Amino acid sequence: MSIKLYELAGADPHLRFSPYCWRTCMAFAHKGLQWEAIPWRFTDKVAIAPFGSQRVPVMLHDNQPVVDSWTIAQYLDEKFPDRPALFDSVGARSEGLLIKFWTERTVHPLISRMILSDIHAVLAEQDKAYFRETREKAFGTTLEALTINRDATRETFRAALEPLRATLGMQSYIGGAQPNYADYTVFGAFMWSRNSSPYELLKSDDPVYEWRARLLDAFNGLGAKSMSAG
Amino acid sequence: MSIKLYELAGADPHLRFSPYCWRTCMAFAHKGLQWEAIPWRFTDKVAIAPFGSQRVPVMLHDNQPVVDSWTIAQYLDEKFPDRPALFDSVGARSEGLLIKFWTERTVHPLISRMILSDIHAVLAEQDKAYFRETREKAFGTTLEALTINRDATRETFRAALEPLRATLGMQSYIGGAQPNYADYTVFGAFMWSRNSSPYELLKSDDPVYEWRARLLDAFNGLGAKSMSAG
Repeated sequence: MSIKLYELAGADPHLRFSPYCWRTCMAFAHKGLQWEAIPWRFTDKVAIAPFGSQRVPVMLHDNQPVVDSWTIAQYLDEKFPDRPALFDSVGARSEGLLIKFWTERTVHPLISRMILSDIHAVLAEQDKAYFRETREKAFGTTLEALTINRDATRETFRAALEPLRATLGMQSYIGGAQPNYADYTVFGAFMWSRNSSPYELLKSDDPVYEWRARLLDAFNGLGAKSMSAG
Repeated sequence: MSIKLYELAGADPHLRFSPYCWRTCMAFAHKGLQWEAIPWRFTDKVAIAPFGSQRVPVMLHDNQPVVDSWTIAQYLDEKFPDRPALFDSVGARSEGLLIKFWTERTVHPLISRMILSDIHAVLAEQDKAYFRETREKAFGTTLEALTINRDATRETFRAALEPLRATLGMQSYIGGAQPNYADYTVFGAFMWSRNSSPYELLKSDDPVYEWRARLLDAFNGLGAKSMSAG
């Protein structure tokens, strides 16, 4: 069996900071699967076009493409039911969708306002103009103007994490005593920041910081050992 | 078997608007259980003190008290495993805790800023001073000042629902094709508003509106048939 993953990389091909690709890497590790990562850049559209996608992650399972991190997670549970479940029931998977959208619609936009200018700095030259143009259009301002007030954004961000913080006051992971795919979904947002930016999002006495530290150390330090531009 | 529920009521004992009690009522209905509601007021502390609680819901199962809506939900799944599950796995229950805290830390405070003055108006006389004092202390302003700009708060509220809205674009309920306790947790916040205030939180073309309508109709219209001060 062969698993390959097209994964976003920076100027340095070892620099991996896509929150969506990190979800998939953590999912592979959770299921005990080996995979080969193929560095990919935003403007390498032609490389993944044959798989019907314009974005990564794209997984190739014995050369069969599986596109989109959420679809990949469901595919892994379906194809490898004897390995640890990413979601242990229909209810867990369904609730995981709300946690995915909380991550993408509440957490990601706030992180963007703190790190997009730093991400730009670590991109491959071929990606810089594309990244600036698409992100500045989406946010209606320059990358530099977006992130200049990030200390204020960080206060808003920390307040927005209150539901997660309260949860971690009662259990070690979103998934309970052990992490599940909902953890990896939120954790991906923190890997996005960790590997692209020196800006510290959390205070070290925050339960969210401790949860992040546990996940950095998980799977033999998959996250902790990864290259960071920070 | 006997199940009784101490449930917050307004001046009219049929007016029930506690978001926490609504979670429990929906949970009883989900499991096909009959129960007797005992109207309770905020200042009736002495009535539930013997059960070790200062708040409702308090459930009495064959005279045995079970306190706190989250604890009651877990109790029901444990005691009635042959009836439909509120959470179908450990993962679903654990993720449900994050959704509970999202409801309480993100959704509830915004609804408070729209309806607390209306709630005050429907309370029993004995509760009015207590309610005003505790809520004004918590929010640092008068009930009237808190809610005067509620049209602006409503915009923030609708934006904060985006994770739920996106989820409901892909499945009918937070629990998937059928509702689970995570649905009832969020739905309780809408029953709180519906039954105490005429202020309309949602646009009728919002997928969240449609989801709320489905839950209002659930269990033979338990929510839809309940008394509203609105």
